[in-house]
Amino acid sequence: MAIKNKDITSRDDDFAKWYTDIVRKADLVDYSSVKGSMIIRPYGYAIWENMVNILDKMFKEHGVLNMQMPMFIPESLLNIEKEHVEGFAPEVAWVTQGGSVPLEEKMCVRPTSEVLFCEHFKKIIKSYRDLPLVYNQWCTIVRWEKTTRPFLRSREILWQEGHTMHATKEEAMSRTLEMLHVYEDFQRNYLGIPVIIGPKTDQEKFAGAEKTYSLEAMMYDGVALQNGTSHYFGNKFAHAFGIEFLNKDNKLVTPYQTSWGVTTRMLGALIMVHSDDNGLVLPSKIAPTKVVIIPIGDVSETLDSITISLKENNISYIVDDSDKSPGFKFAESEVKGYPIRLEVGTRDLEKGIITLVRRDTLEKIEVDIKDDISKKITEIMEIMQKDMYEKARNRRDSMLYEASTYEEFKDIAKNKSGFIKVNFCGSATCENKIKDETGLKSRCILEDEVVNNNCIVCDQKANYKIFFGKQY
Amino acid sequence: MAIKNKDITSRDDDFAKWYTDIVRKADLVDYSSVKGSMIIRPYGYAIWENMVNILDKMFKEHGVLNMQMPMFIPESLLNIEKEHVEGFAPEVAWVTQGGSVPLEEKMCVRPTSEVLFCEHFKKIIKSYRDLPLVYNQWCTIVRWEKTTRPFLRSREILWQEGHTMHATKEEAMSRTLEMLHVYEDFQRNYLGIPVIIGPKTDQEKFAGAEKTYSLEAMMYDGVALQNGTSHYFGNKFAHAFGIEFLNKDNKLVTPYQTSWGVTTRMLGALIMVHSDDNGLVLPSKIAPTKVVIIPIGDVSETLDSITISLKENNISYIVDDSDKSPGFKFAESEVKGYPIRLEVGTRDLEKGIITLVRRDTLEKIEVDIKDDISKKITEIMEIMQKDMYEKARNRRDSMLYEASTYEEFKDIAKNKSGFIKVNFCGSATCENKIKDETGLKSRCILEDEVVNNNCIVCDQKANYKIFFGKQY
Repeated sequence: MAIKNKDITSRDDDFAKWYTDIVRKADLVDYSSVKGSMIIRPYGYAIWENMVNILDKMFKEHGVLNMQMPMFIPESLLNIEKEHVEGFAPEVAWVTQGGSVPLEEKMCVRPTSEVLFCEHFKKIIKSYRDLPLVYNQWCTIVRWEKTTRPFLRSREILWQEGHTMHATKEEAMSRTLEMLHVYEDFQRNYLGIPVIIGPKTDQEKFAGAEKTYSLEAMMYDGVALQNGTSHYFGNKFAHAFGIEFLNKDNKLVTPYQTSWGVTTRMLGALIMVHSDDNGLVLPSKIAPTKVVIIPIGDVSETLDSITISLKENNISYIVDDSDKSPGFKFAESEVKGYPIRLEVGTRDLEKGIITLVRRDTLEKIEVDIKDDISKKITEIMEIMQKDMYEKARNRRDSMLYEASTYEEFKDIAKNKSGFIKVNFCGSATCENKIKDETGLKSRCILEDEVVNNNCIVCDQKANYKIFFGKQY
Repeated sequence: MAIKNKDITSRDDDFAKWYTDIVRKADLVDYSSVKGSMIIRPYGYAIWENMVNILDKMFKEHGVLNMQMPMFIPESLLNIEKEHVEGFAPEVAWVTQGGSVPLEEKMCVRPTSEVLFCEHFKKIIKSYRDLPLVYNQWCTIVRWEKTTRPFLRSREILWQEGHTMHATKEEAMSRTLEMLHVYEDFQRNYLGIPVIIGPKTDQEKFAGAEKTYSLEAMMYDGVALQNGTSHYFGNKFAHAFGIEFLNKDNKLVTPYQTSWGVTTRMLGALIMVHSDDNGLVLPSKIAPTKVVIIPIGDVSETLDSITISLKENNISYIVDDSDKSPGFKFAESEVKGYPIRLEVGTRDLEKGIITLVRRDTLEKIEVDIKDDISKKITEIMEIMQKDMYEKARNRRDSMLYEASTYEEFKDIAKNKSGFIKVNFCGSATCENKIKDETGLKSRCILEDEVVNNNCIVCDQKANYKIFFGKQY
């Protein structure tokens, strides 16, 4: 029996308000007088820390070295790559004054750090022996967004940005895909989020990239969230910055480059894919606190034996022994999304049982007090992790459509939520027409799927199949 | 036999140039077109990551919760606490423009985040039940320094800032000291750096603090580095921000506050305390790579058995099998400061030995190939960790002086490097006189030491004993 938390709007009534309620009521985020930025509160930050720790370990297994660049970019440096500056200049924060003195040259707070890495690479790359360079930094970036929402679109974003340089095209492209698959693996197996991966159209590429691969996740409401990107730059930046190296034949040649990043936006995805009207639902692998124990009556002896077992097995837990009522505590534990709730009550103990509640299904499971509680919890958390992914994938799959005519496309776009698959020419004209008439934008190209008709819009030759969808 | 690296200036000839040589030649830092900021290269960042991981674990054992504040502070928010704004406004970077639009109110990049925490605390503290709050953030701050040096004084600083709120004065003071001792423990037992701890004079306090405790380390050249601070604020900020809570007697009262921080400056201290003319010397507990193996001739079988053993025992290592000469590799391994060098050569193997070189002493130790190499390395690294601390402490102690007259003080200040202990009244007049006439500044008050004479400068009543010294 779920106790509905009256303070949380139903997600089917008003998804946007439900989302805001969750981030506030679960103590993930608070606002401050800094417009467009957010305070990430300890509970929200602990989730982010878990993401960082897991991803960082994965990166290191893939040979990635962490380092740290300055946070400012002088205007002249930002201006070096033309497409890049056109993409980013309109949305940066400019520092124009140090103390009381105006700066000779204004500097922006980094919106991303390609140009800083290029300047550094130019200094340290001399020979093929210096390659590849596989660097990453965890840092904060700033993009001067007009409308903001916690985690989804914020003026300040916590993220990682990987930047790599390679002797060959093939190696750079292979690294682009390698990191894309690290992200996919992480989002599927830790966040429990199914993603569709593929290249963006030319119009939706990163400013300066030759190819941008994206991870497209679908939220509960059928709207897309671009949940990470991996870019192949070819040698556009390297040319612009004059980066060259002596290859094995002692010739000066230009190296090939990639960059790739994921952000605190993944926290938004986590919420919008799994959570419900009772609050946050977290995959057990990413939850900072796995178990909440709620004692009812004097159960100190059993409580001790449980906490000793959890400690021994490295299962994080909290005991809610405050003076609130059990019902209130149950509701609160659901808002916070602790994967497992143990209700340890005198009446249950007389029957020789403890009640275990799964946060994802709210199913109550009676556990024999003679059972190995940590083993039981570990087993159930593994099942929950799998179940949550399956549930998310099933919901996502139920909102995948295919349209063979533009009329059909517009009809689905108008009446359903989700992604629509079409044959597509790839032109800006057709893409803009769809955007203007339906509000849908291209998600990612489905490289493995066969084109079986002309472009759904212009009826000219289609170049690929692609998903369209509304986006956050 | 040490192979001198010709590219490194001798520290006894020119300590400043020696320092710059070390940070560059050991690949810790690079410069960019962002004046006053530094690039922390992968090897330097790996040392910082180790510091962060160890400290963060210690913080968590002391009940600290991590979170994240915005990086900007609106001018009006910075202005709320008078002493604080006077201390920081002259040295902040101001953002005045977002994209192409001038901001209505300019914002600085945080030089420290007291005001942001206060604004947040005001919102979330209602009752004694909400206290204590023990928060911390790892982030980058900006202070618009005019002259900068890598790690020691930089416009951008990576640091952690802890901010706590307490119901009572006693609890807040106790937390101030608790974190001071966490820092002391870390610097002594991990960085191998002896520190003198105590309060700063009123003149040298943090802008807005009632009491600032400092960790004063002495560098190889006898100059002081303030290597961390812990501040007790009383309720000055809380009053300025109108923070109040209902105590157990249902009365509205003002809470008490602390903040405490350490920075990448600790990397500078690490270098200037332990390193030598051959390069970096790192305490084994903080070195990212513990062992470098240099094979000489065909020794692949022995090499395999060594690396298997190191892997099994979680001892990080690299094998330098490049085509450079052994002599060059030895010199390079010394520049990088890997604690242990294993020279695995065919001639040694015929004699049944491997040569192990301690980086701190450059002592060569013959290890029987039948010995458990990982056990041997672990034992030697433990000894090195202790020895390096002892060596640093002995050198520091040899440069501690005591002066009983101002003439004597001036004589020591002129002719020796180090700290000078004196009886002192604490007045700004006397402190400024010393600073103007000798260039020395107060380090920290020695709370446990008994005053045994009048103030060394004015001959009025002394209030405490204190160290003076030159500072970075």
